[in-house]
Amino acid sequence: MRIILCGFGVVGQSFAKLLESRSEDLYARYGLKPRIVGVFDRNGSATDASGLDISRLIDAKKKYNSVKKYSETKNNASGIEMINDLEAEVLIETTQSNYKDAEPGMAHIINAMKQGMHVISVNKGPLALAFPSLMELADYNRVLFRFSGTVGGGTPILDFAKNSLRGERIVSFDGILNGTTNYILTNMADGMSFNNALSDAKQKGYVEADESLDLDGLDAAAKLVILANWIMGMKVTMPDIKRTGIRNIDSDDIKHATEKNCTVKLIASCNKELIVAPREIAADDPLCVSGTLNAISFTSEQSGTQTIIGRGAGGIETASSILRDLIDIRNESTKT
Amino acid sequence: MRIILCGFGVVGQSFAKLLESRSEDLYARYGLKPRIVGVFDRNGSATDASGLDISRLIDAKKKYNSVKKYSETKNNASGIEMINDLEAEVLIETTQSNYKDAEPGMAHIINAMKQGMHVISVNKGPLALAFPSLMELADYNRVLFRFSGTVGGGTPILDFAKNSLRGERIVSFDGILNGTTNYILTNMADGMSFNNALSDAKQKGYVEADESLDLDGLDAAAKLVILANWIMGMKVTMPDIKRTGIRNIDSDDIKHATEKNCTVKLIASCNKELIVAPREIAADDPLCVSGTLNAISFTSEQSGTQTIIGRGAGGIETASSILRDLIDIRNESTKT
Repeated sequence: MRIILCGFGVVGQSFAKLLESRSEDLYARYGLKPRIVGVFDRNGSATDASGLDISRLIDAKKKYNSVKKYSETKNNASGIEMINDLEAEVLIETTQSNYKDAEPGMAHIINAMKQGMHVISVNKGPLALAFPSLMELADYNRVLFRFSGTVGGGTPILDFAKNSLRGERIVSFDGILNGTTNYILTNMADGMSFNNALSDAKQKGYVEADESLDLDGLDAAAKLVILANWIMGMKVTMPDIKRTGIRNIDSDDIKHATEKNCTVKLIASCNKELIVAPREIAADDPLCVSGTLNAISFTSEQSGTQTIIGRGAGGIETASSILRDLIDIRNESTKT
Repeated sequence: MRIILCGFGVVGQSFAKLLESRSEDLYARYGLKPRIVGVFDRNGSATDASGLDISRLIDAKKKYNSVKKYSETKNNASGIEMINDLEAEVLIETTQSNYKDAEPGMAHIINAMKQGMHVISVNKGPLALAFPSLMELADYNRVLFRFSGTVGGGTPILDFAKNSLRGERIVSFDGILNGTTNYILTNMADGMSFNNALSDAKQKGYVEADESLDLDGLDAAAKLVILANWIMGMKVTMPDIKRTGIRNIDSDDIKHATEKNCTVKLIASCNKELIVAPREIAADDPLCVSGTLNAISFTSEQSGTQTIIGRGAGGIETASSILRDLIDIRNESTKT
C-alpha cells in the first residue's frame, strides 16, 4: 500500500514512526504492508517509489526544517504536482486546519480523490467547510474517505457512535470536544482568572497559533460539523453552527455554577439545533471531565446515555487514529 | 432468520417487543427479517414455524406465568427437545446466570452449537465457567457466538474494546462492572451504613435474588472473565479471578477514602493479575461514576486511557445489545 503524506509535523512524524515500529505486526495481523512513497511539507518534498526511509526523513526534517534535503536529487515538486504524478493508493492529509478556505488541504484531498486515491484526513478544515460535497466526490470516484483523528484524537468517538452503537438510533449528543478550552475552564473553576488561565495554557503549548480556533469555539464547531454529518446523517457545514466561545466567561459565571454544584464547560451539542456554547454541567455528570480531556455523551433510543472519555489530541494518539483508518481502508478495499 | 428464545423474562420480552417495533426498519437497513419460532420458560414452551405472535406470547406469559398456553395445542417440549427438534438459525439464551454449574444455559448453548445454530447469550454463567471451551465448540461447529449484553448491558463495552480500538494494543483495564454494588457504595459515600444502603438497593429492585452474586463480586468476576478472554486473548475461567466483595467495607474505609478525595469502588481489573476487589479511586478519575452506572477504562499503548460509561443493565438496554448481535450475525453469516 503506497502512501503520500501531506505535511510532516508532529502528527506526520509520529505516524511515520508508528508505521515503522509496527511493520511486522501490521503485516502479520492485517496483511498490511504500507510504505510512504512521497512526503511534502511547506518547503519541499521527498519521493521514493520503493518507500522512503523514515529515520532519514526525520533527520532531514530536524536539520533543515524540511524533508526536501532527504536526498541529493533536487525535489521541487509541489504537493499538487506530487499528488497528480506519483502513483499511490492512499493520501494522508495532516496539514494545518483553517476555516477560511481550508487550503491547501482542500486541494490535496480533491486532487487525490480525482486520482482515485483513498483519503485519510486529520485536517478538519476541508471537512468543516465541505463535508457533504467531499463525501459525494469520494462516492463518485469510488474511493474511501476516513477522518477518525479529526474528533477525539486517538479516542475513537466517531467509530464508537457509528459502529459500536449500530442497531441503535442516536437522538442527541453533547460533547466537550476542545481540550484547550476545557483546560482553561478547569483552571478558572479552581480560581484562576481567564487571562491567567489562558497564559498558563499557552505556556504549556495547548493553544493553537491562532488562538481564536480554540477560544471562539471554531475547533469545537468543526468537530460538531463532522459528527452531525457522519453520525446523524445531516448535511451541514460551518455556517450551520450557532457558535459562542469562552472569551466572555468571567469569575462570576464560574461562581454561580459552583453554587449549583455545576461547572461551566464549552459544550458542542446536537439536539434539533447545532450549538457550540458555554453551558453549566452538573459536577456528577460523566460528561463533566477536567483538564484537557475530551468527553461526549450520546443519547440513544434504547440504551440511554453513554459517555466516552479520552485524551483529545497529541501526535501519537492522532497517529494511532490514522493507522486505524488505514487498516479500515485495507479491509474495505480488499472486499470488493 | 429463525430464532429460538430461551427464557421469557424481562430481557426476553423486551427483545421480542423490540423486534416487533423495529421490524420494518431492520429489513430496510440490514435486510434482517427475524422471526421467533420457539420460546420456552421454566414451565413450558410455544412454537410456530412461521413465527410466533409477540403480543399473544406476552399476554400468555402475563396471564399464566408461562408461554405454554400460547396456543391450545399441548406443548410440553423441554428446552433441549426444542433445540434438538426445531429448525432455527439462532439461539438466544436469556435464562438466569448461576456460577455453580451454569445450567440450564450451558446445555442450551452446547446443544444449539452442535445443531449448527449461531448463539447469542446474555447469560453470563456459561461464559464465566467455560469461555475457552465454548469458543472452541463454536469454531468447531462453524457457528458464531456473541454475548454483547453480558458486559455493560446496552453499553457496548466489548465491542468498543474489540473493534473501535482495533490497531491498538490494550495493556490493562479497570472497570466498575456491577451497578448494584456501585449504588450501595455511592450511598455509603453519602453517609449511609452498609446495611441501610443494601436495604435501599433491595427495595429498588437492584439486588439479585441471590445477593451473593452482587455483594461477593461474582457478577463482576464473571464479566472480568469475559473481558479477559475476549479482549485480552487470555484463556481463563472463574477460578482464575482473585475476588473480594464489598461486605467488609465499613464507614471507616469510606471516611479514609474521602479524606484523600477518593471514593471506594468495587473494581474489576486486568493488569498481569485478574482481580475483583474494593479500591480507592480518585474523585476526579473518569472511572469514578456514581449510582448504578458502569464504567471501564482501557489503557492502550498509543492512545492513553479511554473510559466508557453507561447504564449497565435493564431489560430494554440488554434487548438492544441482543439486536446488535443479531445484526452482526446476519452480516457475518452472509459474508461466507
